[in-house]
Amino acid sequence: MDRLNKQLALLIELDKLKTVLRRTRVKSADGRLENTAEHSWHVALMALLMEEHANKPVDISKVVKMLLLHDIVEIDAGDTFVYDTEASQVQEENELKAAERLFGMLPEEQGQELMGIWLEFEAAQSPEAKFAKALDRIIPMLLNYYNHGQSWQEHGVTKTQALTINARIEYGSEALWDKAQQMVADAVEKGWLKDQ
Amino acid sequence: MDRLNKQLALLIELDKLKTVLRRTRVKSADGRLENTAEHSWHVALMALLMEEHANKPVDISKVVKMLLLHDIVEIDAGDTFVYDTEASQVQEENELKAAERLFGMLPEEQGQELMGIWLEFEAAQSPEAKFAKALDRIIPMLLNYYNHGQSWQEHGVTKTQALTINARIEYGSEALWDKAQQMVADAVEKGWLKDQ
Repeated sequence: MDRLNKQLALLIELDKLKTVLRRTRVKSADGRLENTAEHSWHVALMALLMEEHANKPVDISKVVKMLLLHDIVEIDAGDTFVYDTEASQVQEENELKAAERLFGMLPEEQGQELMGIWLEFEAAQSPEAKFAKALDRIIPMLLNYYNHGQSWQEHGVTKTQALTINARIEYGSEALWDKAQQMVADAVEKGWLKDQ
Repeated sequence: MDRLNKQLALLIELDKLKTVLRRTRVKSADGRLENTAEHSWHVALMALLMEEHANKPVDISKVVKMLLLHDIVEIDAGDTFVYDTEASQVQEENELKAAERLFGMLPEEQGQELMGIWLEFEAAQSPEAKFAKALDRIIPMLLNYYNHGQSWQEHGVTKTQALTINARIEYGSEALWDKAQQMVADAVEKGWLKDQ
């Protein structure tokens, strides 16, 4: 019962992720900002749909675990806009502290196991982490594209930025990187992304 | 590329789940209603945390898949309140139609595979489905309890209803059913749930 109570305490704490807002807007709603909890669902389900497009064979259940867990640190550290490259050093330290606090709420060996999966995602070296990172990068691009470039326009993002920041999609999935480049080219042509 | 385009079309369609509202409120937000996408993330992550409390050994990656997919039919069919027992027959037909439409957007064999997982969850017979159903039942009870019975009070739910409707938690997890009964008893004592 003590183990269960620790797990339940973390589960209730995780409710807070539903209040962390991202820069992407929900296309099908009234244009409100997306929160990190619903993003995490969307990208985890994307992994199930897109497994065949990973560059290397992956343990898809580990990819899904990574994606369900990857952003819980935002409960303490908040969301950083992918194009805000200056914020990334401080953010990294804050996220590590948050991971230690949150996984530290669990029974010790369980917390260590999940911390290991979170660190593997952050390190972006294993085939699973590379693929998970690729999905996490492309999904806001997709939502943005189908929103006629809303977030790119709101934050003055250029074609060069979009192609530079997101180039690592290729490490996880060449097929998705091809798709991303097509979208960027098309978005420039349609005037949704600045050509610079 | 044709397969990828079909998968992407479904992915974008799934964005709509972020606009389907449930009866539960988000404790950590301004009390707004929870949407089904963020609920799906929360309950899928719960499965990862709570695997050891399943009555029988389960393939946890299948449980997680079930929980990521189980409510996508609400895009067409909407959410039904668990205590609204009259709505369930019509709802069942609408959900089946929705599953056929949504999974039908995928490459055929992929759509059939995911439809199989969805049907297995609905049938509630396999250890994985029983455990997934148990989690899906108890998580709104937990959120409600930590919200001081908000949804029970708003809808005039009684102790008898809560214990009857949720009794099937026991089929998936006796440990979680024990916890649910404790919460109900405590909620009655605190005046958050009507004692009838």
